[in-house]
Amino acid sequence: MTRVYLDHNATTPLRAEARAAMIAAMDVLGNPSSVHAEGRAAKSLMERARADLAQAMGAGEADIVFTASATEAAALACAERGLHGAAVEHDAVGAWVDDSLAVDAAGRVRVADPGQSVLQWANSETGVLQEVPPGIAVSDMTQALGKLPVDFDASGARMALVSAHKLGGPKGIGALVLRRGQEVPAMIRGGGQEMGRRSGTENIIGMAGFAAAARAAAEDVADGAWDRVAHLRNILEKTLEAGAKTTIFVGKDVDRLPNTSCFATPGWKGETQVMQMDLAGFAISAGSACSSGKVRASRVLTAMGHDPQTAASAIRVSLGLETTEDEIMRFAEQWLAKREKHEMRAA
Amino acid sequence: MTRVYLDHNATTPLRAEARAAMIAAMDVLGNPSSVHAEGRAAKSLMERARADLAQAMGAGEADIVFTASATEAAALACAERGLHGAAVEHDAVGAWVDDSLAVDAAGRVRVADPGQSVLQWANSETGVLQEVPPGIAVSDMTQALGKLPVDFDASGARMALVSAHKLGGPKGIGALVLRRGQEVPAMIRGGGQEMGRRSGTENIIGMAGFAAAARAAAEDVADGAWDRVAHLRNILEKTLEAGAKTTIFVGKDVDRLPNTSCFATPGWKGETQVMQMDLAGFAISAGSACSSGKVRASRVLTAMGHDPQTAASAIRVSLGLETTEDEIMRFAEQWLAKREKHEMRAA
Repeated sequence: MTRVYLDHNATTPLRAEARAAMIAAMDVLGNPSSVHAEGRAAKSLMERARADLAQAMGAGEADIVFTASATEAAALACAERGLHGAAVEHDAVGAWVDDSLAVDAAGRVRVADPGQSVLQWANSETGVLQEVPPGIAVSDMTQALGKLPVDFDASGARMALVSAHKLGGPKGIGALVLRRGQEVPAMIRGGGQEMGRRSGTENIIGMAGFAAAARAAAEDVADGAWDRVAHLRNILEKTLEAGAKTTIFVGKDVDRLPNTSCFATPGWKGETQVMQMDLAGFAISAGSACSSGKVRASRVLTAMGHDPQTAASAIRVSLGLETTEDEIMRFAEQWLAKREKHEMRAA
Repeated sequence: MTRVYLDHNATTPLRAEARAAMIAAMDVLGNPSSVHAEGRAAKSLMERARADLAQAMGAGEADIVFTASATEAAALACAERGLHGAAVEHDAVGAWVDDSLAVDAAGRVRVADPGQSVLQWANSETGVLQEVPPGIAVSDMTQALGKLPVDFDASGARMALVSAHKLGGPKGIGALVLRRGQEVPAMIRGGGQEMGRRSGTENIIGMAGFAAAARAAAEDVADGAWDRVAHLRNILEKTLEAGAKTTIFVGKDVDRLPNTSCFATPGWKGETQVMQMDLAGFAISAGSACSSGKVRASRVLTAMGHDPQTAASAIRVSLGLETTEDEIMRFAEQWLAKREKHEMRAA
C-alpha cells in the first residue's frame, strides 16, 4: 500500500515547475555580485525571480528580500521592536513578540494597534483565517500564500513573511516583503546583498524554484483548484464526525484554509494518533512540526480556551492539490477504527 | 569564441556530484521536523549530509550548523563578541570585528590573543595563506576548503566558516563549524532547528549538494588535482611578468592558494581591466565580488601597505580545476595586448 501524505501544511512536494527552474538554474555559473557577463546573467535570473514572486503575491509596489526561511524573515521583521502578538502566532514570530493580543474561542485575534502588532493571515494548525487590519506591522502569510488569493499591496500590511516550501518550492528559502519605504536593520552583514538588508551570496537555485512555484501556485489559486480540496476536506470532516461524536473540530464555524482540518479527541493523545496513523501509512501531524521531534500540547488550541487535555489530543490533517477522495476515505476508515480501539481500551 | 571563466574564487561551477545529489534530494518530501516516516527520511538525508561534510573537513569531533552562507556563519560566530581581526578579513567578518591586528607587507597577520581573534585561512583576493594559531576563536576557511587539505579538528580553531559554492556546491548554503562545547547565541529563533542554534526549515537540497561537493573536493585535494592548477598559475605569472615589467604580483613570495594570482599595474584601474577583459571574453575580478557592482580600491592591498593607486589597479585571476593551459595563454596574450594599448594611451 502506498503511503498517504496528509501533512501539506508542514511541507508539500516540489512542483514540477520549480524542479525544472532549479535544474535550469544549476547551469548559471556566475556570482550575482560579479560585474562580468557570468555575474550579470546570475543577477538577471535573480531579479527575474524577484519580479515573478512579487507578481504572484501582488507585491509589485513592494521590496522583496530573499531569506533562508520565513523564520529568518520573522527575525528581520520583528526582532527587538516591542511588537504585540497573539499566542496563535508561529514560534518563529512568537520568539520576538509578546502574547498580549486576545484570542477568542474561534481563534480570532483582536488587534488594537495595528502599527505595533503582528497578525498571521492563516493559522498553520487550525487553518483559521484572520481579518488582518490595514497598517499591520507584520503579517505572516506563510500558510496563506499559495492556498488563497494574496495581494500584498492591497492588504495594507507593512511587512509580510512567506516561505517557498509551503507552496511547492524548495525548503530553505523564504522572503521578507516590505512595503516600499519600510526599513529593517540588517542582521547578516558583509557584502551588502539584498540592498544591504541581508548579506551573503544568494541562493540562486532556490530563488528560481521559489518564483516558479509561486507563479504556478497563483495560477492554481486563480483557477479555483482549492475548491475541490475544500470539498474533500469537508467530506472528511463529515465522515469523521458521523463516527466520532465526542471529537471536536476546531475552527469549523469560521473561515479557514481550504485544506486544513484540526480535530481533538480528549483523552487520546495527538502524539499517539500521529504514530499510529504513521504505522498505518498516513502522514499527519500534532501541532506544528517541531524540530526536536517532541510533540507538545498545542499552544494554539490552549490560546483558544481549550483545556490542556483537549489541546494535547489535537491532530492536524492538511490536504494537498493531489489528494484524492480515495485517500481521504482510507484515512477516515483507519482513523475511526483506531479511535474505536482506543475507546475500548479506555473504557 | 567560448568564454574563459577565471573567477573561481568568486564562485565555481556546480560539480556533477552536487547536481546529482540535489536532484535526488528533490524527491525527498518530508519536513525534517516531522515525526512521521516522510519527516524521518528528510532528517536522515540531512544528517547524512552533515556527517559527510564533517568527514570532508576533518570535523568529526565538531558540531556543524548549516547556514545560508559563510556570511551568516560569520555573523553567528563573531557578532557582538569584541573580537580582534585584521583588515584583510572578508567584509562578512570585518563587519563584526575590529581591524587591530597588524598585517605585514606579504599579507601575513600577527595574532597576539588567539582566543579573542579571528584569522582567515586563505585570502580571497591574494590567495595568501596564514598560519592560523591553535585556539583561534574564529577562522574563515571559505577559500581554503576544497583547495587545500583542511583538518578542522587538528587546526585547533574553536569555530570555522565555510561555504558550498566556493568548492562546487550550490550558492546559498554555508556552515558554522563549532568545536564541541563551543556555543553561539541564536540569531534566528523559532522552531529550534540546528540544535536551537538556527531555526527555520532546513535547506535539504542545498545540504545534499554541499556535502556531495565537499566530498568530491576533498578527493580532488587528496589526489593532488590542484598541483596542475598551481603549475598553470605559475606559467601565467611568468608569462605576464615577462611582458609587463612594472606589474606587481602580490603575495608571490609566500604560501598562497594554488589557483590565485593577484597583480597590480599602477595607473591602470582594476575596474577598467575587468571590463575590457570581459568584453574580450574573460571573467576575472577586481577585489572581492561586491554586491553593489561598484569596485573599490582593495582593502586587502591597502592593508598590506600598497598605496591607493596601486590597490585600485589590482585584479584577481582565479583558476579552476577545469582551467586549461590554452585558456591561460589566451588570457595572457589578450591582457598583455590591452596593457600595451593602455601604456600607449597613458604615454
